[in-house]
Amino acid sequence: MRSLTEYLVLNTTERQEFINITREIESLVEKSGVSEGICLVNAMHITASIFINDDERGLHSDFREWLEGFAPHEPLSKYRHNLTGEDNADAHLKRTIMGREVVVAITNGRLDFGPWEQIFYGEFDGRRRKRVLVKIIGE
Amino acid sequence: MRSLTEYLVLNTTERQEFINITREIESLVEKSGVSEGICLVNAMHITASIFINDDERGLHSDFREWLEGFAPHEPLSKYRHNLTGEDNADAHLKRTIMGREVVVAITNGRLDFGPWEQIFYGEFDGRRRKRVLVKIIGE
Amino acid sequence: MRSLTEYLVLNTTERQEFINITREIESLVEKSGVSEGICLVNAMHITASIFINDDERGLHSDFREWLEGFAPHEPLSKYRHNLTGEDNADAHLKRTIMGREVVVAITNGRLDFGPWEQIFYGEFDGRRRKRVLVKIIGE
Repeated sequence: MRSLTEYLVLNTTERQEFINITREIESLVEKSGVSEGICLVNAMHITASIFINDDERGLHSDFREWLEGFAPHEPLSKYRHNLTGEDNADAHLKRTIMGREVVVAITNGRLDFGPWEQIFYGEFDGRRRKRVLVKIIGE
Repeated sequence: MRSLTEYLVLNTTERQEFINITREIESLVEKSGVSEGICLVNAMHITASIFINDDERGLHSDFREWLEGFAPHEPLSKYRHNLTGEDNADAHLKRTIMGREVVVAITNGRLDFGPWEQIFYGEFDGRRRKRVLVKIIGE
Repeated sequence: MRSLTEYLVLNTTERQEFINITREIESLVEKSGVSEGICLVNAMHITASIFINDDERGLHSDFREWLEGFAPHEPLSKYRHNLTGEDNADAHLKRTIMGREVVVAITNGRLDFGPWEQIFYGEFDGRRRKRVLVKIIGE
């Protein structure tokens, strides 16, 4: 069995941001030398997501508005978690909707994707250093 | 390590549909010859889901009503994604709630399931050809 | 390839409960002897979740209130699934939001976690015996 472990570092300039990391993951699959296997990609922070969807600006805007409706950032007093001095309770909830991780098949040495699948890092409490774990196993 | 990669093709007659694909996945596990490992099943399209739940008609009706409340199909103008000429922004959101993929354990050559677990394909923008990826790895 | 399969048994005293099972999973990783691989943890029942988030009491209270807003337990007549004699339709929906499973990387023989990641069992229809599957594969 072969395996590869890498950590991507992301620093967003805004509180919320969606960043396409597909190219980085493709490079790591190539680096791994794995021909048949799986690739796990997960946020290492609990106010961020990894998800797969379309790289379309309007859709991302829809996602943001939709998530804000579900779990509004304000008023901060809406959430008990914010009594700890945090202001990011909404980010924990938003990340839950969007998901922590994806598992992607590797076939013939490449991410085995449908026509529009792209991997995104979803940040909900940004403006600081965060990490994404990439774990590839296979042969 | 053994591996198997297969693509199921689904063509629904309705925009939204839940299809039980457990038997197909069980057959592929058998075909793979994998005794201990995992089975990844994912939608290859970003307006469809794979999820595990109960095969109960009333529950599926509840899911549909619940998802429609979260992400109504109409008015189409509610979503910026639909400005691209699409009418399926709601399907991207519904699929996000229901999930892209499942990872199921294989033990003693079989899907290692609890009493009511069944695998479903959830279509939210159907009436056209779509694919589901099944990747099995193990030994 | 090495693999380990174990079943945790949980019996909650309340209908809804979040239980931190990180220590149990860590012990199983150690027991497996796997140095590089992945660990799948999934609820075997369709009214329960496995999810990763912060072990903070206020946040858990926020999660419960938020989920109740999405999928209220009452009135029972709100859900067709409850016409089968069940009273747990809401639990199926809540579990869908929180997720069935997590896949965690194992690196150097340990769960490869960010600073606040903890694994929780989320029960939404408790007061009875339920099982969680842990499947570890790697080398």
